[in-house]
Amino acid sequence: MSAEYADALGNLVDQLAKLPGIGRKSAQRLAFHLLKAPKKDAYALAKAIITAKERITYCKVCFNLTDQELCPICANPNRDSHLICVVEDARDVLALERAHEFKGLYHVLNGVISPMDGIGPESLKIKELLIRLQNNDVEEVIIATNSTIEGEATAMYLANLLKPLGVKVTRIAQGLPVGGDIEYADEVTLARAFNGRLEL
Amino acid sequence: MSAEYADALGNLVDQLAKLPGIGRKSAQRLAFHLLKAPKKDAYALAKAIITAKERITYCKVCFNLTDQELCPICANPNRDSHLICVVEDARDVLALERAHEFKGLYHVLNGVISPMDGIGPESLKIKELLIRLQNNDVEEVIIATNSTIEGEATAMYLANLLKPLGVKVTRIAQGLPVGGDIEYADEVTLARAFNGRLEL
Repeated sequence: MSAEYADALGNLVDQLAKLPGIGRKSAQRLAFHLLKAPKKDAYALAKAIITAKERITYCKVCFNLTDQELCPICANPNRDSHLICVVEDARDVLALERAHEFKGLYHVLNGVISPMDGIGPESLKIKELLIRLQNNDVEEVIIATNSTIEGEATAMYLANLLKPLGVKVTRIAQGLPVGGDIEYADEVTLARAFNGRLEL
Repeated sequence: MSAEYADALGNLVDQLAKLPGIGRKSAQRLAFHLLKAPKKDAYALAKAIITAKERITYCKVCFNLTDQELCPICANPNRDSHLICVVEDARDVLALERAHEFKGLYHVLNGVISPMDGIGPESLKIKELLIRLQNNDVEEVIIATNSTIEGEATAMYLANLLKPLGVKVTRIAQGLPVGGDIEYADEVTLARAFNGRLEL
């Protein structure tokens, strides 16, 4: 750290700059903000980080993040346990919940198959999904991995694995985003939108 | 906080979203990053916040931030004590130090005169500047407040206050930024660049 900084300030800037999307300039701005902020506010942030790290674990059923044994969704008796929506990440659960469309349960893979990054199926929570399917009367598994190469490959892998078990396996639709312009859509999206067309 | 979040996670997102320039989406991304990061890294950030809040205070001479009684610049005997550069904020000290041009001492006002925000001269460290000028053989005060309306007004106020004391008062130059295009410069900047022209 440069001598112009007080050590404690330099260390704070260093730590903030490690956060994703926060460069050194932003880290400096945040550090100065925290130094100017009331002591109570800065401490609340520090405490929130420590508490979250101490309390938050994975739901033992679906691997969503939770501070209980079961996540709020798995613990909710009103959710339809015949449907399981498979997602890559706990953040995807939040995004899908905001759409208020799906009333079943989730299963968080905690990643996607990505040979480039050395992530094979055994690194994901796939074995745990198979166990859930054996023990419960699940009727449909909806695969909601991202529309990326890795997301698609993982969807294919899961479909091949789950279909022989007699469970219905579906994939969320691909097509034009709502408000999207055909003129600016890429060819692959347009092709998918055609293939997935529905009768009106 | 929405029920879909675990409480500790929701609180962490809330606290992060209070930081300047961090919206709820970014706060969520940062929170998930911290939860995935090694425990040691997340704790290092929390600890850096607490340590900085505990240790960092204002330099009792120039009001720069420091974890000692004097900031590193005031404590450095090699700095020229005949020159005092007046800035708005401790961040400006860092920016000017990076330019490696000024070898004197600083005086941090901790703000600018801004009647709109209820900030008058008495809220700034101006009295303390006057005391420094009485006790030391300062030859020149360089006013390096921002080129904003408030920064200019503060510079004017200080010039009127300090000149009668017999000290030389200067203002940092305004003009075309290095690499700047005349075509895209605003009229006021161009006018200042003309007025401040130097013989080659």
